[in-house]
Amino acid sequence: MITMAVDAMGGDYAPEAPMEALCQAATQYTDTKFIVIGDEARIRELGGARLPDNVEVRHTDVVIAGDEEPVRAVRRKPNSSLVMAATLVANKEADVMVSAGNTGAIMAAGTLIIGRLPGVERPALAPILPTFDGRGVLLLDAGATMDASAENLLSYAYMADAYVRHVLDIEKPRIALLNVGTEDSKGNAVVKQAFALLSQSPLNFIGNIEAREMMAGCADVVVCDGFVGNVVLKLAEGIGLGLFSDIRTVLTQTMSGRLAALLVGKRLRQMRARYDWAEHGGAPFLGVNGGCFKAHGSSNARAWFMAITQARKFIANDLLHKLTVAMGERHVSVPNSELGEGRT
Amino acid sequence: MITMAVDAMGGDYAPEAPMEALCQAATQYTDTKFIVIGDEARIRELGGARLPDNVEVRHTDVVIAGDEEPVRAVRRKPNSSLVMAATLVANKEADVMVSAGNTGAIMAAGTLIIGRLPGVERPALAPILPTFDGRGVLLLDAGATMDASAENLLSYAYMADAYVRHVLDIEKPRIALLNVGTEDSKGNAVVKQAFALLSQSPLNFIGNIEAREMMAGCADVVVCDGFVGNVVLKLAEGIGLGLFSDIRTVLTQTMSGRLAALLVGKRLRQMRARYDWAEHGGAPFLGVNGGCFKAHGSSNARAWFMAITQARKFIANDLLHKLTVAMGERHVSVPNSELGEGRT
Repeated sequence: MITMAVDAMGGDYAPEAPMEALCQAATQYTDTKFIVIGDEARIRELGGARLPDNVEVRHTDVVIAGDEEPVRAVRRKPNSSLVMAATLVANKEADVMVSAGNTGAIMAAGTLIIGRLPGVERPALAPILPTFDGRGVLLLDAGATMDASAENLLSYAYMADAYVRHVLDIEKPRIALLNVGTEDSKGNAVVKQAFALLSQSPLNFIGNIEAREMMAGCADVVVCDGFVGNVVLKLAEGIGLGLFSDIRTVLTQTMSGRLAALLVGKRLRQMRARYDWAEHGGAPFLGVNGGCFKAHGSSNARAWFMAITQARKFIANDLLHKLTVAMGERHVSVPNSELGEGRT
Repeated sequence: MITMAVDAMGGDYAPEAPMEALCQAATQYTDTKFIVIGDEARIRELGGARLPDNVEVRHTDVVIAGDEEPVRAVRRKPNSSLVMAATLVANKEADVMVSAGNTGAIMAAGTLIIGRLPGVERPALAPILPTFDGRGVLLLDAGATMDASAENLLSYAYMADAYVRHVLDIEKPRIALLNVGTEDSKGNAVVKQAFALLSQSPLNFIGNIEAREMMAGCADVVVCDGFVGNVVLKLAEGIGLGLFSDIRTVLTQTMSGRLAALLVGKRLRQMRARYDWAEHGGAPFLGVNGGCFKAHGSSNARAWFMAITQARKFIANDLLHKLTVAMGERHVSVPNSELGEGRT
């Protein structure tokens, strides 16, 4: 039996979107118990007669807002939906939590309340970014840690390797380092040092990758620091939204545009779907000592459902144990690197 | 009379693309003298009977390759086309140089051979990134300096302010700091410090901006470090190329696609043109003590022509003097900040 804590108060479309997804998921995943946290009256209203047996409700009306300072908010609001979800995981009442709330606050709750895996100094947010070949690429860190060291980046690579092997069934994931050029000597100080560490590791490190090639699907995992990764994520999203909005205008504003839409609308929608965040679900905070998933802040019910599905798979595949093993191997294979050292 | 040095050996389509652009530019800009540097026989062959009177040729067959280590290459290859162009600017034989070669090598030649403006520790590469409102945004630094300090970022803002005021005729440019959130407290250590410096400056600093909003045209200038800026530039380009390639496939593979292309092909091409790098020309290295322009490595003749046009405008508008004044004001307005201090 898997137990999942669902924060029904975070994100732009809460609680409607998470509740719709939850009801669907609870019906479909009968091996999973869902503890949904939020305004009980509203949750029962939205769940209606449908609220399945494997759904339990924990009431709160405290929420952490998107613009609150994460660490302070987590410390001051133990009764917020987000902190309650993390506490359930910390107490082993739940295996995994899912929230569409404040990313920094989820990271803070993951680190301070649930804790870190042995050997992990900094967890990393690891979403799958859509690529043009349709495979997608695991990008980490997408915003959990702002000033990452080269050692942190190496840890991200070890965790991503284990995650991608077991979740995406890729035997030897191609791991690349996001950089401004493909030559070995490129990059800032931290990235150059990370290149050296990754080159010495037993991982399938394929070297530096430029952002252009990343979108073409030339790697399974792309490692970068949380500042860069977050910029990448938001830029990719912004450009996708902007271009598809422009295409929509072309296909709706004129009669010839509407005729063209009849001819190719379906294929363009398929193309858009390949580029849709909702299909790629949520993103795990790898390195947290319990399942900890972030759903996109503007998740609709579909995106929420995919995030719940992914979080369930994380536990069903025993990823926490596999990540622990991977971090153990990392410390064996690079004996000189001590935790916490090498911050540059 | 403006004198421009053109490196006819750098870039993917050299010397054909720069020569085609040069012949057009020389005919159109009769107030400008062009010194074109490269293989003289090939240049005369491409120029043919057309080589106008205001074009002078300097022969070399030495080129700096894309993968050479920049500083070493610049030091060891004084007779390369790129270094010869920079030397002409350093000796005041030319006002401005344009090259589509190795970005790092242009930066090295600009800094080591031409030198920096008074008060500038690090020049910045400042391209205009297309935005969905069609106005474009000046992004800097796009890759000149990898480990920039907060003081460097502040200097970029001062230079960009002067540049955008005079080149794009925007009276009080909206200057934003690229960040992972809009709240004041967001970012890595350098960005947080830069936020404080920018807030205290007399510039029209509108605060942090996320990559998503940047693409919507919410700022005239976006400041970031060279690592992040280069990733942004290449990602935007990669996504644009990928999506338009997918659209092309939809519009050419099937009969209904080809019919749709007849109906909306022109409008989609216009949309694509707005997103086309070629139309936005080259990018100046702001802070070099002489005109120093980078044309995109894959510039075709059109992109080359736009880069030449932009470089000419830089000199015609006396931008070098205006940037010098701006840097002077910057040191008056922030008396406590000494050059070279504040590297974090």
